[in-house]
Amino acid sequence: MNGADILCETLLANGIDTCFANPGTSEMHFVAALDRQPGMRCVLGLSEGVVTGAADGYARMAGKPAVTLLHTGPGLANGLANMHNARRARSPMVNVVGDHASYHLQHDAPLTSDIDGLARPMSHWVGRIEGVGDLRVRTEAAIRAALTGAGGIATLILPADAAWSAASGGAPEAILRPRPDPVDGQRVDAAARALGNGRPTTILVTGTALRAGPLEVLDRISQKTGARVMAQQANGRMQRGAGRVALDRVPYVIDQALAAFAGTEQVILVGAKAPVGFFAYPGKPGSLLPEGCSVIEIAGPDGDLPAAVEALAEAVGAFEAPPARLAGREMPDLPGGALTPDAIAIALARIMPDQAIVCDESVTSGRDFFRSTYGAAPHDFLQLTGGAIGIGIPMATGAAIACPDRKVIGLQADGSGMYTLQGLWTQARENLDVVTIIFANRRYQILHGELKNVGAGNPGENARRMLDLDRPTLDWVNLARGMGVEAARATTAGTFHDLLQAACRHRGPFLIEAVI
Amino acid sequence: MNGADILCETLLANGIDTCFANPGTSEMHFVAALDRQPGMRCVLGLSEGVVTGAADGYARMAGKPAVTLLHTGPGLANGLANMHNARRARSPMVNVVGDHASYHLQHDAPLTSDIDGLARPMSHWVGRIEGVGDLRVRTEAAIRAALTGAGGIATLILPADAAWSAASGGAPEAILRPRPDPVDGQRVDAAARALGNGRPTTILVTGTALRAGPLEVLDRISQKTGARVMAQQANGRMQRGAGRVALDRVPYVIDQALAAFAGTEQVILVGAKAPVGFFAYPGKPGSLLPEGCSVIEIAGPDGDLPAAVEALAEAVGAFEAPPARLAGREMPDLPGGALTPDAIAIALARIMPDQAIVCDESVTSGRDFFRSTYGAAPHDFLQLTGGAIGIGIPMATGAAIACPDRKVIGLQADGSGMYTLQGLWTQARENLDVVTIIFANRRYQILHGELKNVGAGNPGENARRMLDLDRPTLDWVNLARGMGVEAARATTAGTFHDLLQAACRHRGPFLIEAVI
Repeated sequence: MNGADILCETLLANGIDTCFANPGTSEMHFVAALDRQPGMRCVLGLSEGVVTGAADGYARMAGKPAVTLLHTGPGLANGLANMHNARRARSPMVNVVGDHASYHLQHDAPLTSDIDGLARPMSHWVGRIEGVGDLRVRTEAAIRAALTGAGGIATLILPADAAWSAASGGAPEAILRPRPDPVDGQRVDAAARALGNGRPTTILVTGTALRAGPLEVLDRISQKTGARVMAQQANGRMQRGAGRVALDRVPYVIDQALAAFAGTEQVILVGAKAPVGFFAYPGKPGSLLPEGCSVIEIAGPDGDLPAAVEALAEAVGAFEAPPARLAGREMPDLPGGALTPDAIAIALARIMPDQAIVCDESVTSGRDFFRSTYGAAPHDFLQLTGGAIGIGIPMATGAAIACPDRKVIGLQADGSGMYTLQGLWTQARENLDVVTIIFANRRYQILHGELKNVGAGNPGENARRMLDLDRPTLDWVNLARGMGVEAARATTAGTFHDLLQAACRHRGPFLIEAVI
Repeated sequence: MNGADILCETLLANGIDTCFANPGTSEMHFVAALDRQPGMRCVLGLSEGVVTGAADGYARMAGKPAVTLLHTGPGLANGLANMHNARRARSPMVNVVGDHASYHLQHDAPLTSDIDGLARPMSHWVGRIEGVGDLRVRTEAAIRAALTGAGGIATLILPADAAWSAASGGAPEAILRPRPDPVDGQRVDAAARALGNGRPTTILVTGTALRAGPLEVLDRISQKTGARVMAQQANGRMQRGAGRVALDRVPYVIDQALAAFAGTEQVILVGAKAPVGFFAYPGKPGSLLPEGCSVIEIAGPDGDLPAAVEALAEAVGAFEAPPARLAGREMPDLPGGALTPDAIAIALARIMPDQAIVCDESVTSGRDFFRSTYGAAPHDFLQLTGGAIGIGIPMATGAAIACPDRKVIGLQADGSGMYTLQGLWTQARENLDVVTIIFANRRYQILHGELKNVGAGNPGENARRMLDLDRPTLDWVNLARGMGVEAARATTAGTFHDLLQAACRHRGPFLIEAVI
């Protein structure tokens, strides 16, 4: 038994049994230890953006962390962007980053880098194992950090000599459990009083308060008090569809976002932050709230949000209100003709199976998805939370591993999809039940809009060369097939509808290049 | 005129006229400013690993930095692994990383992260522009840092409000020049004395001392003194082939590397570091030098290496030695049958055009490339310098942009190639003259070897799932075509030879999937 065995056993004893990995030489003893643990499922990603993005998608759906296996500083660096998204989603994650043997660091061998420094900006907790003796304690600390509050990114640095040194085993430790912050009665009372003062109020929600149950309670509060309930702009996971509360999100586009709060005099935050612009724009405010708008936070991001919502409902007497207003099962008519984002949303509303998991990185193309899908079959909706593009394909991959009996549907912008297209191979390798819809507008459409906002006029040659994905166009059917995923192209609404229907009847990965 | 215009003009005034980019909203004013500068060539990469890897390849061949345009912390993070390689190659690079407007940072909007903290581990210099007033001075400082010594990674953080604020122009500044450290006569004298003491000596070389001219001088020193000249294991750029000095590198495999220095009693370093194992292995030393071996550094990595070599030749009277022993133009016979790495090397030796640029990320498959190619047409040989895989395709891309009249040949392992395959699209977009040879062994072959070294025996299910690239195999022909690059597959030596010959006659990107 060596240090790596201790690490594996401590993870397994705490229910962490899925490892997204891309190993290197310094992790070979860890790989050998994983090889001795049939209870650990090891999933290879062909770049680390796939590894950490899949761990995020997995955590959002499994409600527990996966472990990632990353190779030294550069391997970690490749995974940081999707760790950033996971950090914003408050997904629990335990990253194990291999490093040189501790005594080898003095030589500054080519792969040496400041791993601790790289990890810190995107981690809630960073720890370095000093030797085999503190391996179990540090691993437990990492797991505890991942399970603190809503969830944290814990990065554990594992020097090769700690992994390979002989160790004596012991009984696995008791299982660690997530510990959200308890409800603060005073804050709840303050919010309840505010809800009684008659001023226009928005309850802004994220996190576990966006599950079907708490949303029904929030809807009762809304009916009782007249307050509006909204989800924040980006959320890790949200339950919606027929039979569930139909909820809007704060818009992304700055002018729409400002308009959404124009009449609001007080905001009650449930896990959410006071709303701000995604970016700053010359001459426009950073905060979305009108001057003088008051803010009451009943529970922070680490709080027990469902309990806080229940407490607020009790305090305002919302449980006396009639049952919540829930979306009906609606089937908008499918338009004919050329394929549009709206036609895609309508086809999804009609075809999406019950309990689908929708992973959204459609960026501009998916902005109208909500409008047509309030009455779609009940589904979970997972978003890009941190603005770091390249989460979509990996997130769908991880969600499918967490929930093998549910259909995963990826809404994927083409520009963002190219960041981590390698994840398609993992979908093929693991035969995951994922339909990826590529919104092929062949440009960074969002940046064309932003360039216009900047007042730069029509893009010239240099700007077009940085914002367009043409010359040549990407052929996603070939790309998918190159990684073992079956694929087809749709240019009309009708073809798309038929392909989606076939893909939803079929089990296993499939990609539709939707040319819009 | 705004801050972004000042930035562009300062770059151009210093000869930095190539921008590898993947922009986002916070960089839109910089994009608009670049759009006003037809003298700046903007090259889009579909992920930031392509952007920084191309900037590295460009710098190695152009001998000057490119500028990169990266989008906030996550965009920088995606580019860090190849910045690490560039840092180890001592390639000059100026990274411009956009950030939120300075007054927006307080809101911790979703894309906010500690950019300075992320940049530091992989940069020689990090600076943040505080306002439009210090934009020119900070930009000059970044350029100066990139041009200091052998070359540095300079990362300049550009808040959006500094870019968009009005600025007054001025005359472009005088052009900054690289400044290597001057030669230290005392060190040269010490080395010359050591070369006269009759003890077995190795002169270990890297950097600009690996160009054809200094290598001839080093060969004269070798003939005069009996010392052995070797290149360090990984080098940014090395000139070799027929008519040039035939030079060995320090082997990668630890036992071979230790054997290479077994008889050495003193080492003279020319830009190189005292040799160490790429990784640590249980029970094996970290330093490759025998106990008691003395080390003399005549010039450090930032030194004027060609001048130091000349000074050493003078000091030992090497210019009296006969002309250097140079490799003849040899044409090994092409083997028949199944395709092997050796057959690929021999085909290259026979077919590679004069002044080709060979970008090597073939990992295990290319270890015998040197043996068959000492007498190939003269070429530049660029390596993976920092061990962060995913440099190959981007490096070839950047080298081809720096040298449009030379053929670029990428020796690319399949596992590493998948990290940044997106670079193929840039090759198609820019119609770059690159032949990419994928060594398709369908596994992380190096890790199979390392797992064996670890004593883990035959890999089981979990290990195989992390080390093999099968189930399904990657189809590189489809992947390349998906990005607009023509491609074909070879499984025999004969087919490979014919494909390579056709690819070398044709101009523009081509990919050969070499199934070995």
